[in-house]
Amino acid sequence: MMIEISSLLAKSGILASDHTSVVSMNLFVALLCACIVIGHLLEESRWMNESITALAIGLCTGVVILLTSGWKSSHLLVFSEDLFFIYLLPPIIFNAGFQVKKKQFFRNFMTIMMFGAVGTLISFIIVSLGAMHFFKKMNIGTLTIGDYLAIGAIFSATDSVCTLQVLNQDETPLLYSLVFGEGVVNDATSVVLFNAIQSFDLSHLNSGVALQLVGNFMYLFISSTVLGVLAGLLSAYIIKKLYFGRLVYKLNADELSLCFLFMKLDGDYINFYLNYGHSTDREVALMMLMAYLSYMLAELFYLSAILTVFFCGIVMSHYTWHNVTESSRVTTKHAFATLSFVAEIFIFLYVGMDALDIEKWRVVSDSPGKSAVVSSILLGLILLGRAAFVFPLSFLSNLTKKSPYDKVDLKQQVTVWWAGLMRGAVSMALAYNQFTSKGHTQLRDNALMITSTITVVLFSTVVRHHKPLQSRTQD
Amino acid sequence: MMIEISSLLAKSGILASDHTSVVSMNLFVALLCACIVIGHLLEESRWMNESITALAIGLCTGVVILLTSGWKSSHLLVFSEDLFFIYLLPPIIFNAGFQVKKKQFFRNFMTIMMFGAVGTLISFIIVSLGAMHFFKKMNIGTLTIGDYLAIGAIFSATDSVCTLQVLNQDETPLLYSLVFGEGVVNDATSVVLFNAIQSFDLSHLNSGVALQLVGNFMYLFISSTVLGVLAGLLSAYIIKKLYFGRLVYKLNADELSLCFLFMKLDGDYINFYLNYGHSTDREVALMMLMAYLSYMLAELFYLSAILTVFFCGIVMSHYTWHNVTESSRVTTKHAFATLSFVAEIFIFLYVGMDALDIEKWRVVSDSPGKSAVVSSILLGLILLGRAAFVFPLSFLSNLTKKSPYDKVDLKQQVTVWWAGLMRGAVSMALAYNQFTSKGHTQLRDNALMITSTITVVLFSTVVRHHKPLQSRTQD
Repeated sequence: MMIEISSLLAKSGILASDHTSVVSMNLFVALLCACIVIGHLLEESRWMNESITALAIGLCTGVVILLTSGWKSSHLLVFSEDLFFIYLLPPIIFNAGFQVKKKQFFRNFMTIMMFGAVGTLISFIIVSLGAMHFFKKMNIGTLTIGDYLAIGAIFSATDSVCTLQVLNQDETPLLYSLVFGEGVVNDATSVVLFNAIQSFDLSHLNSGVALQLVGNFMYLFISSTVLGVLAGLLSAYIIKKLYFGRLVYKLNADELSLCFLFMKLDGDYINFYLNYGHSTDREVALMMLMAYLSYMLAELFYLSAILTVFFCGIVMSHYTWHNVTESSRVTTKHAFATLSFVAEIFIFLYVGMDALDIEKWRVVSDSPGKSAVVSSILLGLILLGRAAFVFPLSFLSNLTKKSPYDKVDLKQQVTVWWAGLMRGAVSMALAYNQFTSKGHTQLRDNALMITSTITVVLFSTVVRHHKPLQSRTQD
Repeated sequence: MMIEISSLLAKSGILASDHTSVVSMNLFVALLCACIVIGHLLEESRWMNESITALAIGLCTGVVILLTSGWKSSHLLVFSEDLFFIYLLPPIIFNAGFQVKKKQFFRNFMTIMMFGAVGTLISFIIVSLGAMHFFKKMNIGTLTIGDYLAIGAIFSATDSVCTLQVLNQDETPLLYSLVFGEGVVNDATSVVLFNAIQSFDLSHLNSGVALQLVGNFMYLFISSTVLGVLAGLLSAYIIKKLYFGRLVYKLNADELSLCFLFMKLDGDYINFYLNYGHSTDREVALMMLMAYLSYMLAELFYLSAILTVFFCGIVMSHYTWHNVTESSRVTTKHAFATLSFVAEIFIFLYVGMDALDIEKWRVVSDSPGKSAVVSSILLGLILLGRAAFVFPLSFLSNLTKKSPYDKVDLKQQVTVWWAGLMRGAVSMALAYNQFTSKGHTQLRDNALMITSTITVVLFSTVVRHHKPLQSRTQD
């Protein structure tokens, strides 16, 4: 039944052309396997892990494709924010919630909120103003005020995906919960910021608009959380109520007599109609589907889907997980971690391949120095923006804590500052969204922003990854 | 970062319009959950199981959508062969191979091959000739000889997906391996048949062409099998060689000293740099990716991807599975079963929703009797076609067996005949491919063929499903 597959693919419009797309998919899956194996082999090395391996392999593949295609294109798949937000991000964030140490997370809830909300706002203002100041001096003239604010939002978004790879929650639970929690709340803040940039009249920023922004943020945060918690509780209720795991080997007399009538079955055949009720499959399927449903529901209501699925993960690991069979527990724990792991590798491979986006590099190739300067300025602003909120807010947070164990000391503050430096696929997705139309641009300044984003992402990821291999599950 | 999601979706071109598609996805995932829960609740009932529940829920939803959309459309998603062949079928067939009882399968290998290859050919000839004979009398004039042969191929394809749900391999291993094995080999045969219909000049069928067909089939069968086996063995080799599961808690002195130098970390932080090597995630990810890779590679070389992934599943369960950690074993066993389970439910929900394809029904609505007659003729031909090979071939197969346990007695022959009656999503996909262009047709006879296929699929599925709930895994 497979002959028509290539024409079917073409027909469906999802994949561009017949055989080429099958080749691309093959190559991509093979590269994913290679990343896992090579990443594992390089585990001993200080500078490598799966993410960096994926980035490097992506870059190398990009070069090869670039050469074989005659300097026309470097990717197998065009960077699609859709793929990222609909398929790759949900399992990563859900798994983070599912495996997070809940006690630490809730103990530091206020600090996390301050970092995520107030901190992001501070960083956003500094990066926006800084970019405006420096870029105007550099004669990058075509950028509008909206573009500068977007730059602020793009480079204020801590990449929770990368961050998860750098810190280990078992070894540094306080830091992990701070940095990761900040990343999640950060997302909700970014939603509000982006909305603001696109809908509010920013030339007349007054207290009314500011209040509206704060109200919007509170609504978004609370409703997203409630939705996630409700979805988690519902799954726990359903699984508990239905006792999936306990409906084993039930015989139905009616049915048996029917068997005998119908086919004159002998003894051997009775078992044929036994009811096993493959409960584990059902439980795992239901947990996966409900988690995904919560994410999509949040999308539906224009909430922060990342926050929703994160809290859904927390509730599921706290309630649902204890109602299922033992094999469901092992399966969900590892299956979710695996999905998340593959999605991460996928993203890094993707970003690596996309980094050689020849179209944009060609546009900015007449001024390589400018691109380097812009990237450096942005990196500097990111460092400055983070410093401007991590240290003061940590100080404020320490004032409210009594126990010295809950205080964030200077060393830890440095780690929080440094760990949140990374910009990843989220920044890429936002930059593509702001500065290109369907992944293409011919405007010089827009192309410059894309290439600078790529540079910042690659640089910050590689620098931060001096041997950061940690596990989310230990065996 | 979610605000732009709707426009992103629209941009990507994968989903038709912004908010509507998010609504559709929500509804679809919610319906999947409902199918699992309601299917579980109805487990006691003789006539229901998850598949029928999914079909019924799909039909009901179709009616509701039909009414709310003002009789315009009945589906959330247009039936896409791409979705079916690329995402839903691989996990189902792989899982079947992964959980199949290998001993029984190989013991009956010759019988399975006869049923799958010779039997399908016999059935194909009978259905084609029968359709030609009856439909010409009924004045369905626009069908070409190619269409009749396609009808033969469409209705000779035993649906392995549905069949898996009817038989239980633990209770009736012989029957299960016969019927399921037939379904898998059947697929390879169908590839050859479809190729023949489209490329060979069938008006001049001579011994040369026939030999070419046989050679083509042998090549396809052998190369697909070899590819699957190689992929399975490679995964076993990689996992064994890399000892994923044994690389736990390794400390790297170099790295540690770097830590101390770099951040003056105290004792607490040493663990931070411990190497857990989340081996289970890696192993499970690698198994999943390699299995999918084998499927896509088969597509790439125009082989029978179903055969390939089936044998890959067999080899993985026999070799790879024994090299991985205990938690990987539990996880793979249940995760693959869960994926397969969700894919099955998805297909039935999809088919149920698609059954009310108003466009086609409207075209044939002037002659409801004709549609019913065509469906009945097709059902009759399917029964006849199966009878024409199951009983003679079983007789031949019995002649070669010495042990009475290996012989297929009359009762079992009846079961094989009856169990293979079902036509499912595979037939639907082929019918859509042959008789529509991108899911649409205005030709009366083509629409008639689609509606008849839908009728046959619904009827055969419901009739065959008198309480067939079995498990693929037991807890």
